[in-house]
Amino acid sequence: MIIILKSGATDAQIDHVIERVESLGLRAHLSRGTHRTIIGVIGDESQFEPAQFQVLPGVTEVIRVLPAYKLASNEAHPEPSVVDVAGVKVGGGNLAMIAGPCAIEGAKRLDTIAADVRAAGANILRGGAFKPRTSPYAYQGMGEEGLKILRDVGQKHGMPVVTEVMDPRRVEMVERYADMIQIGARNMQNFVLLTEVGSTKKPVLLKRGMSATIVDLLMSAEYILSQGNPNVVLCERGVKGFDSIARNLFDVAAVPACKALSHLPIIVDPSHATGRPDLIGPCALAGVAAGADGVHIEVHNCPEEAMSDGPQALLPAAYEELAGQIRQLAALLGKSISSPPASKR
Amino acid sequence: MIIILKSGATDAQIDHVIERVESLGLRAHLSRGTHRTIIGVIGDESQFEPAQFQVLPGVTEVIRVLPAYKLASNEAHPEPSVVDVAGVKVGGGNLAMIAGPCAIEGAKRLDTIAADVRAAGANILRGGAFKPRTSPYAYQGMGEEGLKILRDVGQKHGMPVVTEVMDPRRVEMVERYADMIQIGARNMQNFVLLTEVGSTKKPVLLKRGMSATIVDLLMSAEYILSQGNPNVVLCERGVKGFDSIARNLFDVAAVPACKALSHLPIIVDPSHATGRPDLIGPCALAGVAAGADGVHIEVHNCPEEAMSDGPQALLPAAYEELAGQIRQLAALLGKSISSPPASKR
Amino acid sequence: MIIILKSGATDAQIDHVIERVESLGLRAHLSRGTHRTIIGVIGDESQFEPAQFQVLPGVTEVIRVLPAYKLASNEAHPEPSVVDVAGVKVGGGNLAMIAGPCAIEGAKRLDTIAADVRAAGANILRGGAFKPRTSPYAYQGMGEEGLKILRDVGQKHGMPVVTEVMDPRRVEMVERYADMIQIGARNMQNFVLLTEVGSTKKPVLLKRGMSATIVDLLMSAEYILSQGNPNVVLCERGVKGFDSIARNLFDVAAVPACKALSHLPIIVDPSHATGRPDLIGPCALAGVAAGADGVHIEVHNCPEEAMSDGPQALLPAAYEELAGQIRQLAALLGKSISSPPASKR
Amino acid sequence: MIIILKSGATDAQIDHVIERVESLGLRAHLSRGTHRTIIGVIGDESQFEPAQFQVLPGVTEVIRVLPAYKLASNEAHPEPSVVDVAGVKVGGGNLAMIAGPCAIEGAKRLDTIAADVRAAGANILRGGAFKPRTSPYAYQGMGEEGLKILRDVGQKHGMPVVTEVMDPRRVEMVERYADMIQIGARNMQNFVLLTEVGSTKKPVLLKRGMSATIVDLLMSAEYILSQGNPNVVLCERGVKGFDSIARNLFDVAAVPACKALSHLPIIVDPSHATGRPDLIGPCALAGVAAGADGVHIEVHNCPEEAMSDGPQALLPAAYEELAGQIRQLAALLGKSISSPPASKR
Repeated sequence: MIIILKSGATDAQIDHVIERVESLGLRAHLSRGTHRTIIGVIGDESQFEPAQFQVLPGVTEVIRVLPAYKLASNEAHPEPSVVDVAGVKVGGGNLAMIAGPCAIEGAKRLDTIAADVRAAGANILRGGAFKPRTSPYAYQGMGEEGLKILRDVGQKHGMPVVTEVMDPRRVEMVERYADMIQIGARNMQNFVLLTEVGSTKKPVLLKRGMSATIVDLLMSAEYILSQGNPNVVLCERGVKGFDSIARNLFDVAAVPACKALSHLPIIVDPSHATGRPDLIGPCALAGVAAGADGVHIEVHNCPEEAMSDGPQALLPAAYEELAGQIRQLAALLGKSISSPPASKR
Repeated sequence: MIIILKSGATDAQIDHVIERVESLGLRAHLSRGTHRTIIGVIGDESQFEPAQFQVLPGVTEVIRVLPAYKLASNEAHPEPSVVDVAGVKVGGGNLAMIAGPCAIEGAKRLDTIAADVRAAGANILRGGAFKPRTSPYAYQGMGEEGLKILRDVGQKHGMPVVTEVMDPRRVEMVERYADMIQIGARNMQNFVLLTEVGSTKKPVLLKRGMSATIVDLLMSAEYILSQGNPNVVLCERGVKGFDSIARNLFDVAAVPACKALSHLPIIVDPSHATGRPDLIGPCALAGVAAGADGVHIEVHNCPEEAMSDGPQALLPAAYEELAGQIRQLAALLGKSISSPPASKR
Repeated sequence: MIIILKSGATDAQIDHVIERVESLGLRAHLSRGTHRTIIGVIGDESQFEPAQFQVLPGVTEVIRVLPAYKLASNEAHPEPSVVDVAGVKVGGGNLAMIAGPCAIEGAKRLDTIAADVRAAGANILRGGAFKPRTSPYAYQGMGEEGLKILRDVGQKHGMPVVTEVMDPRRVEMVERYADMIQIGARNMQNFVLLTEVGSTKKPVLLKRGMSATIVDLLMSAEYILSQGNPNVVLCERGVKGFDSIARNLFDVAAVPACKALSHLPIIVDPSHATGRPDLIGPCALAGVAAGADGVHIEVHNCPEEAMSDGPQALLPAAYEELAGQIRQLAALLGKSISSPPASKR
Repeated sequence: MIIILKSGATDAQIDHVIERVESLGLRAHLSRGTHRTIIGVIGDESQFEPAQFQVLPGVTEVIRVLPAYKLASNEAHPEPSVVDVAGVKVGGGNLAMIAGPCAIEGAKRLDTIAADVRAAGANILRGGAFKPRTSPYAYQGMGEEGLKILRDVGQKHGMPVVTEVMDPRRVEMVERYADMIQIGARNMQNFVLLTEVGSTKKPVLLKRGMSATIVDLLMSAEYILSQGNPNVVLCERGVKGFDSIARNLFDVAAVPACKALSHLPIIVDPSHATGRPDLIGPCALAGVAAGADGVHIEVHNCPEEAMSDGPQALLPAAYEELAGQIRQLAALLGKSISSPPASKR
């Protein structure tokens, strides 16, 4: 860390800062400038927070030089990680093609959609059994019955399945049915839930919160990693913006920005990022072009009957067309797309 | 709801929209303009979402006319609500003066701080036993031991106590010790947790999420209210902004904006909103001047030893001075400040 | 427009709104719902603003149904526009490859960079003679001397040139030297300047303001178009975001979102959007994949000696590699890249 | 400045950075940590930009320690400045009460409004003759005729007048008629215009841009100050936010945040910050409570006939009530409100 002192900091204040640094087992390196004095903190600063020095009298600013995340950083793990989702590889040149309806609404509908997205090239099936809804009066999902349907349909079509968990008391149940556990954007800083999924061995799809910085996202990944679960896939799904023209603001630069800091795979979710079917395709391609390790898209065969988020779903035919374009782009970029195993688990 | 059709919408599309509206037990009122056709939806639209109509072919936009929250709205409850926190009134002209350290760090320190803030005029004591920390390596709080300390210190000084809960499995425990349960900004859309605290009867301090709109905040309050708990106090604590000069962007207009829509009390938290001691006082006064029903401020007697968020805490003497200014302003505005009951519960 | 009345609006208020609508030569279409009354405004609403009805007693909201821009809309002009920049086509399947240094720093340096970017595949040369600098003490550009250098170097290498104008009094001068006039992000709502460049016939490169919505951008284009200059190329260059990890937040969805509303070409500027050389390439490719009609990139052969914005410039070799990738992607997408005319003008 | 090197920076890279620093006449102070090497730059860094060092190989981050503005900083000028607007003092404990219509629409209407706001306690009259309108088809103002009306009405009522200038070619004209020149939010970084008003001696009301940081605002003030005009009054008028519930997001913390850095007076404009009459009063009081040196409010006696921004204007009676509340609050805070001179100039 670097501690910058105020222009009028007294010698007593400077001494007090140095004492404080040294009392924590760190070394202080003093540098007096014409206008400002700075103190470099030397040693393992990972146990400390800038706030601890910020409060000292005479200090104007404290700057962290090393990242606060360690396991997620690519200093610790220089090679890109490849996460194995029941046989489907994600990361390190392997593209995840995750598709399916927002909510699981019944076995027959899910079966039809799964057949469609599998035929179009998807390699992981998604579907929500527990839905985070802004309104307490809105459809909340089928619960465990939905999880069973998801597992059975996934097995029938030979696709690993991913579904969201919202309640730490349900992690064990979701783990039994799913091949990958999703943490939604609203729960990205639900540290209780992160800790809970970190204690499973299931791959985790960690969605970026609506106002989370890249570093915040990596810190949340660190929660999961630090519990012993190394299988984290990040997901950019749009941040809060000022323009109501789209549901969120798709931050495509998050893809290379994450890769500059972390070895974890990162995929994009243009469905939630835009909320508009006509923007999903262009943003999916943009994400892959920017280096994303996968694309998460909601697909529904009858959006007007969807129980949740119908307007942001693609029809199966539109998904098929887009998946073809993604495959062409992936080929140009030298990326592979794992076929799902014929029968999983 | 108002359904706006695209400029080239066909008669078949218009008919289909009308059929769909009527199939849901609502009435449709057609209005053809020179350039656009609009359909007004007449009936109890609270069960439906704009998304359900947005997906229909030919539709360009669907606008909700009535709010999606009902219990939180001041159409349902025109008088301002007064929430009773173990004898301390909040709302309807009564100001909450909530103060205390970020985290409970031990009985002796909390006792000293409580004595100071009580003497300065605080009427509710705060302190965190479970801390939501961005880093898994940071101090996470004292847990149940901290809750006991908080309860005992509160009782000694005759102050009701408020503390945060993060885990739905801990709501029962926190309820046993606290007079008011805090939902932090990061959990504002943790619907599982909202539902859980809604099933208690304890007053809930609901902090606004960092990228939550006013309507999002009221929808989260609706979760709690709809479970049967009417005792919700909202809290503006800053939203995500683009300027790093302060920790967050204090949205003081949220105070009158909430009051224009809802009967629920709303307080301000300038400590988290700014993260800078020199901005806390001006923003606290701004909040009260704008009509806030209380002020939540972190106070610590030795910020440089604080386990969490030291830099945003006021020293007891600074709090005392500010509390005096708030009292003068409250008197000018005709607001009361409940004395805490001599011995609570 | 649609006028929504408050729930308790009186008959007198409703009548007054209708009178007001009719007094402006429009027709009012009344629709009374269970909870809300709405009035549809029928006629040419382009002369009026929602604000004029918003102030009327009893009105709660006024919604514009038709866009306020007309010449920029694709209702008026369904085919994509192709803008001709001294022989280089932009839009309608033709990609602009704009490259060059941030600032013109001298004839020799510009000549070298121009040779490099021309060889790498750029078809329009950029360079600033008047620089908008946040600090009054920073380098402000070479002025007219720079314009001469830019024109001469462009002619030598057979490349049309684009440069920024900031002062309405200099539009005539810039017009004499440049093939395309740039309006910078900070001047996107400098209506005086927009009007001035609208009265030339030179193509205009209109950069999106840092907090401008897509509709704001199209309204600014409308200023230029309404003066009689149809040659406007839009440019997404990042909006203000909350994460300091990049200079701005690159809004790639702006590309398809603009195309859904307007016939005007839109290009991307990943240099300003990110400010980080390692993010420029991925974001350039993302923009093209999303449908952009061109890419604007700053290139400098010695960034550490650059007078302005060195860190966001690519080295010529990096630009060459990226330009090759863009060409491959363009070929996949069926886009053309105009060769610049051997000798322009 | 502090230059932070990458973890793997080579000795050759470090030497090159030091050479570069010294070649600019500065001294370099090297500090090698366990994980990072940092170089402190000692000397007058005001002539240099972090970007110049950011581009050097091996550098990861460059941090400015001293502000880039000098004349605007309170290090240069520790006492708060008091700006004299034709006899009305602003700053240093003196409150500006600026009121009037958005646009000057005619002599009679302005006369009536001026009489009303003068009687209510306003001490500076505002009115726009050149209006920055998002739409080229909207009312653009009365021009010079409006300026004459403004001057005459101001003189009749003994009030100094403030009006906006948008065109550098009109600065001289506006200077002839007005006592204070306004730079609107959209022109806060119109450096040509800033330079032009800096060369007058008239007080300048500089509005904060919609996505300008506090430092950006102070840098724009520096443009004016550096031309020799010391009479700058800053104005917080809301920044771009994500919630459409109000027109902008009123950043009340900008008031104390500016005062922590600069000696310049800062006032608030709750009319533009909120765009909602019901929020103007609470936000005006919030601004004064936070330490603002004045309040700028739009007042119109017939908002439904206003040519511009009617919905955000207060009626004269509402302004009168609010002005009374502001006076009470000012008295509590020990602030003065200058009476306008009986006859100005």
